[in-house]
Amino acid sequence: MKPIQSYNPLVGRDVLSIADFTKDEISAVLAQAARFESRLMQDRWPLQLLSGRICATVFYEPSTRTRLSFESAMHRLGGSVISVADALQSSSAVKGETIYDSARMIECYADVIVQRHPAVGSAHDMADASSVPVINAGDGTGEHPSQAMLDLFTIEHERGSLEGLTVAMVGDLKNGRTVHSLSQALAMWGAELVLVSPPPLSMPEDVLDDLSARGVRFTQTQDLCEGLARADVAYITRVQKERFEDPADYLRFKGLYVIDAQTVRAAKEGMIVMHPLPRVDEIARDVDDLPNAAYFRQARYAVFVRMALLAMVLGAV
Amino acid sequence: MKPIQSYNPLVGRDVLSIADFTKDEISAVLAQAARFESRLMQDRWPLQLLSGRICATVFYEPSTRTRLSFESAMHRLGGSVISVADALQSSSAVKGETIYDSARMIECYADVIVQRHPAVGSAHDMADASSVPVINAGDGTGEHPSQAMLDLFTIEHERGSLEGLTVAMVGDLKNGRTVHSLSQALAMWGAELVLVSPPPLSMPEDVLDDLSARGVRFTQTQDLCEGLARADVAYITRVQKERFEDPADYLRFKGLYVIDAQTVRAAKEGMIVMHPLPRVDEIARDVDDLPNAAYFRQARYAVFVRMALLAMVLGAV
Amino acid sequence: MKPIQSYNPLVGRDVLSIADFTKDEISAVLAQAARFESRLMQDRWPLQLLSGRICATVFYEPSTRTRLSFESAMHRLGGSVISVADALQSSSAVKGETIYDSARMIECYADVIVQRHPAVGSAHDMADASSVPVINAGDGTGEHPSQAMLDLFTIEHERGSLEGLTVAMVGDLKNGRTVHSLSQALAMWGAELVLVSPPPLSMPEDVLDDLSARGVRFTQTQDLCEGLARADVAYITRVQKERFEDPADYLRFKGLYVIDAQTVRAAKEGMIVMHPLPRVDEIARDVDDLPNAAYFRQARYAVFVRMALLAMVLGAV
Repeated sequence: MKPIQSYNPLVGRDVLSIADFTKDEISAVLAQAARFESRLMQDRWPLQLLSGRICATVFYEPSTRTRLSFESAMHRLGGSVISVADALQSSSAVKGETIYDSARMIECYADVIVQRHPAVGSAHDMADASSVPVINAGDGTGEHPSQAMLDLFTIEHERGSLEGLTVAMVGDLKNGRTVHSLSQALAMWGAELVLVSPPPLSMPEDVLDDLSARGVRFTQTQDLCEGLARADVAYITRVQKERFEDPADYLRFKGLYVIDAQTVRAAKEGMIVMHPLPRVDEIARDVDDLPNAAYFRQARYAVFVRMALLAMVLGAV
Repeated sequence: MKPIQSYNPLVGRDVLSIADFTKDEISAVLAQAARFESRLMQDRWPLQLLSGRICATVFYEPSTRTRLSFESAMHRLGGSVISVADALQSSSAVKGETIYDSARMIECYADVIVQRHPAVGSAHDMADASSVPVINAGDGTGEHPSQAMLDLFTIEHERGSLEGLTVAMVGDLKNGRTVHSLSQALAMWGAELVLVSPPPLSMPEDVLDDLSARGVRFTQTQDLCEGLARADVAYITRVQKERFEDPADYLRFKGLYVIDAQTVRAAKEGMIVMHPLPRVDEIARDVDDLPNAAYFRQARYAVFVRMALLAMVLGAV
Repeated sequence: MKPIQSYNPLVGRDVLSIADFTKDEISAVLAQAARFESRLMQDRWPLQLLSGRICATVFYEPSTRTRLSFESAMHRLGGSVISVADALQSSSAVKGETIYDSARMIECYADVIVQRHPAVGSAHDMADASSVPVINAGDGTGEHPSQAMLDLFTIEHERGSLEGLTVAMVGDLKNGRTVHSLSQALAMWGAELVLVSPPPLSMPEDVLDDLSARGVRFTQTQDLCEGLARADVAYITRVQKERFEDPADYLRFKGLYVIDAQTVRAAKEGMIVMHPLPRVDEIARDVDDLPNAAYFRQARYAVFVRMALLAMVLGAV
């Protein structure tokens, strides 16, 4: 990792889409996350960088993992949190308030807003209205940029570098928001992609076109073993019930790819296994104890990356 | 504003009704709110006045705006928050616990209680049982005193003074809790009121009698333009669906008064437009960009006024 | 109380069952709780022992009282809280995540986990997976060890000592989790028990066998007056609707024992009345004003005991 001391190109900015950031800017986030990690390792308490600052977590659909990791990140930095864990049910949204008006309200109460919303583009609506930085924590099938950044951080941390890697993406590549954002991001580092999915769940054409335009080498296959044979990283996704109109389709696809210890041992040596979590059955429990299993460490890295984002948009580093 | 340094007549008191406070006491709250505002403007962080203190926000019905603004106020003062965002569903209330018993529980966990409840008088029940100060954040169609105080703060801030003003109140004046409390409060400063509503939604007789008894000059009209012609302040309220038994009545009245940029330009010069929010359609979006639009600034002032209330009842100023 | 300065046998440990702790260890918790109480009485603010530390309260079923008292305890120690107040509805559990995976997630975000779950044994599942200490805040009809500890603290505080007491337990002794744990704990101090219940709701055989094996003297009766005649402590429990399959049974038993001021005056002089709360009708309001009524003070002691547990498992004392 390059020593990018005190380079903070995110002050006052929104974090809406991974595409809004250059390779250098993303590298600055990853470097800051690494500094927070080593700082927390050394003399753990306290880190008062955001003392007195308030983060609002506004979740129009539940996502415990994302919400808690942002809140944990804010607390680790000495900041405070106000939260609407179920904004669709409990908030003024019920009374007919627009996102614009909600933004104009919440910007009065907080210094940074972390929003999750089921509608694509809602994070942009919030950011357009708000005078304080907005971090998109998922807008439907749209974007979830901090997820892509923590995926990059995980790969860099586990593999030593982001350069020259072959990354296999496995499962529902059609509906999986995380693999869209991550493939975009990996393109910046010249990764080669192996896309493993049944044809009905393959990566959308527009994403493939975009990858081609950026000169990314990728191959598509239905065969899991073939897909993992050359992979340095296996990124497994959950087949999400809520994305299928027909329950029969869900049942048909959900058990298609299961990674177990045997699969991992048959794959390229040192391959790491990632997953945005929660998993259901895609990864067998016997993988958990292998050193290859990076998915729980991924959850830990999430806090460092989100600390970096919060501290950087608030200009505290 | 008079310099009322260190005058804190609220130590240890409950804040249940605007009628419990004298003009001097309300002025002291407004003055403290102004001091917090300028303090936050200067050297923003940190303000540790309530460090170690805990505020419990206990909401038996959701009100995101009110809850978040109190929680933001507590955090801005360095305090902590514990919260029951949906006390009717999740709490011991389901198991049959009385407000008395709830109060005896929560007073053990917090130094001040902010309560919202759908039943008129419930804040008094909580306060009677609790040994720590209780702030009424709305009890059904009853009171919401901190709303009235932040409305006063807004008017004073935007108009320079509370004296000698003509205030138009527009919309559902029958069911609108905020206009009842605000009209009571404005009476102390000798405001003249213009009450704009359709006859079925006009200000209740008992409120009018009370205004008369205090010598308040008021006129009633159905005509919006006439109502705004002389107004220094237009206080717009939402016609609230939940207040109507017959949905047809709601539909009949909800679109009756809509303030748009043209309405504002036709009104008295410099008139400010206020609204307790959330708005639905009562104020068109084209008003937002006019300097007259005070309703979003109102949301910002809410934090200063609630900081003042929390700090004062806890004796920290 | 013995001066047990700096004896902390709980560092890094889980708190899953009262049976996991020796008499000395429980005494150490009570002693620490007493130190926190007197510290808070003297110079109240601030106590920054857990500054920078994060407690996750993960509640798979609502329990406002338990959640708020743990959160209050964490804040009183200067720590932070992240919370899932309704984990079954809002969390990854809906998406099919196991407790194991949830544990591996939450341990990344927090330094200690307080869990409530409707299934017996779930706290052990969480603790087995988690690398940070887990405190069981109730697992169905299983255990709730911090409740037993605060009950002991209450008795010691109110009666001066835990030795040589006669404790009457009244109500639903079959389904009451708290009386099972408390009777186990009291056995360590040689208490004599008087078990007052209708036969269908009497203490389960296995609990009685265990008490016998430990040499605990106990008697069983249906008669409330007889039961209270020799009692130093009356521990009243609520007959819980949710424990009965047949509503008729609930109605039959719920009004069976009602303690009122007259009952208390007829009982042994100085007898204290306890209740884990919430109460419904088991204790009449006229008892509240008697010095015997210890149940609201019990709620206050809960915070000190939970402060002790949090500070001790985190090694801060």
